[in-house]
Amino acid sequence: MVITVIGTGALGGYYGALLQRAGHAVHFVLRSDYAEARRNGIRVLSPRGDFVLPHVDAHNSPDSLPPSDAVLVGLKTTANGILKDYLPRVLKSDGVVITLQNGLGNEAHIERLVGTGRVLGGLAFLCARKAGPAVIEHQDYGSVTLGEFGPNPTTEPSALSLRWAEIFSAAGIETRAVANLEKARWRKLLWNIPFNGLSVVLNANTREIMNRAEGRAAALALMQEVLQVANVLGHDFQGSLIDKLMEDTQTMIAYDPSMRLDFLAGRPLEWEAIYAAPLSVAEKAGVDMPAVRLLMRQLQFLRPLM
Amino acid sequence: MVITVIGTGALGGYYGALLQRAGHAVHFVLRSDYAEARRNGIRVLSPRGDFVLPHVDAHNSPDSLPPSDAVLVGLKTTANGILKDYLPRVLKSDGVVITLQNGLGNEAHIERLVGTGRVLGGLAFLCARKAGPAVIEHQDYGSVTLGEFGPNPTTEPSALSLRWAEIFSAAGIETRAVANLEKARWRKLLWNIPFNGLSVVLNANTREIMNRAEGRAAALALMQEVLQVANVLGHDFQGSLIDKLMEDTQTMIAYDPSMRLDFLAGRPLEWEAIYAAPLSVAEKAGVDMPAVRLLMRQLQFLRPLM
Repeated sequence: MVITVIGTGALGGYYGALLQRAGHAVHFVLRSDYAEARRNGIRVLSPRGDFVLPHVDAHNSPDSLPPSDAVLVGLKTTANGILKDYLPRVLKSDGVVITLQNGLGNEAHIERLVGTGRVLGGLAFLCARKAGPAVIEHQDYGSVTLGEFGPNPTTEPSALSLRWAEIFSAAGIETRAVANLEKARWRKLLWNIPFNGLSVVLNANTREIMNRAEGRAAALALMQEVLQVANVLGHDFQGSLIDKLMEDTQTMIAYDPSMRLDFLAGRPLEWEAIYAAPLSVAEKAGVDMPAVRLLMRQLQFLRPLM
Repeated sequence: MVITVIGTGALGGYYGALLQRAGHAVHFVLRSDYAEARRNGIRVLSPRGDFVLPHVDAHNSPDSLPPSDAVLVGLKTTANGILKDYLPRVLKSDGVVITLQNGLGNEAHIERLVGTGRVLGGLAFLCARKAGPAVIEHQDYGSVTLGEFGPNPTTEPSALSLRWAEIFSAAGIETRAVANLEKARWRKLLWNIPFNGLSVVLNANTREIMNRAEGRAAALALMQEVLQVANVLGHDFQGSLIDKLMEDTQTMIAYDPSMRLDFLAGRPLEWEAIYAAPLSVAEKAGVDMPAVRLLMRQLQFLRPLM
């Protein structure tokens, strides 16, 4: 497969590297790490075994990219503006876009650029970060949930999502295809909404948040608001899911959610995809998330002024 | 009148100094500024005219205090624990306690120490800060609303509150007696809850909060939650009060709410009186303030660890 990765950060770089290692022709679009990747390839540090790709096809504009069977989108949602310059010209006529981005609204945005029936949403449960130019440190986890974007959730995963789940799995990425992408997105928001925002406002990693009763109480209350809205939307989550997510966070490594890394690095925050879009969906359904909304306002206030 | 001021910070010091200047025998209980006040008195810097009290009766324990007609409580609510050592032994048998402290629950606490019918609650609308040892900088405003604490609000201000409003007014403190102390407390919470907490979490003064749409939106949402609860409690505030409070905050000086000063100085935060007590009253009335609750959790998390 010819696969283009747009947004070769920790996430796009990690999955792209695994796909290249599995034999696919992967093309990486990079910005700041372009020269380094072109010279020395990409290096992955991982508890599952470090590996190096001494040669990668590095690009820094759409002009040099080949027609691709799939475009993997690993961009920050704050950079979604560049997708219109890449997707229509890079995608083969039967190519598919797989967005591994955070939050809500990305698939709809991409569908407007490339048309219907060719957009997959992927949820990456990955702890990873950039450890240097073109060096990715995989810290923990890494599984992906894939679902096809469409107007109505089906009861079975689509053929397209099953096919790509298989390709990913064969490359060593534990991947599961699901019928209901929207539900999977809300399941991920259950974690992302509390921990991304609190890590910025409280200036704390997940361990520091979980180690204090006040931090746990804040995360829990936010999670409960999100769960309530998800269930109004018909996603039918059990309360026990919250217990599980809290326990998982307690036992996982001390982790800096991506929004905290963005904040500390002075990059724009993904408040639109992770907060504004879910709040707007909730509002349309006639429900509010007052604590989530306050957290969004705080993030907007605290965001690095560009 | 013999008046003891417990807690001679900016607030207790300012009002105590005005009362001494008006001829009352004022005794100041101080902690860190005790030696300085004893040596050089208290200095007040104010746009209404600076003045010095070269001699003040300074105390640092209850032992030296005379029987007092009134005890003015200017303590941080986080120091309420010391009141039991002062109030019962300092107060004349017909003496009164006037607490000018923040938040809810202080009058009830004091009533348990001194008995019923002798507790006044005062709301100080004062921008002031310590500018140095025993030096108080009065920045803006300064009026006081006084009400008698009791089980049932009356329709007219009590004789006791009218009497002390007169004594304060004669000392140059613009003071108004009110029948419904609880309502006055909630009116003040409408401002204190948003701006004290946000100033800490957003690391910003009132001007910085009001100058950004996100800051205004956060303050407004918190204020609306408080208003809703106050009205469930029967206080019947108009929505236009919120507009007025926001406008007043926009036009007033760039101000650091006391909680921000406490935070920056590493002192404990008054989250219990300003947040936990109102939340508990709301809960008993069957309503919640989810954004206010999140803000409290954040403050508890961010509080200086003692």
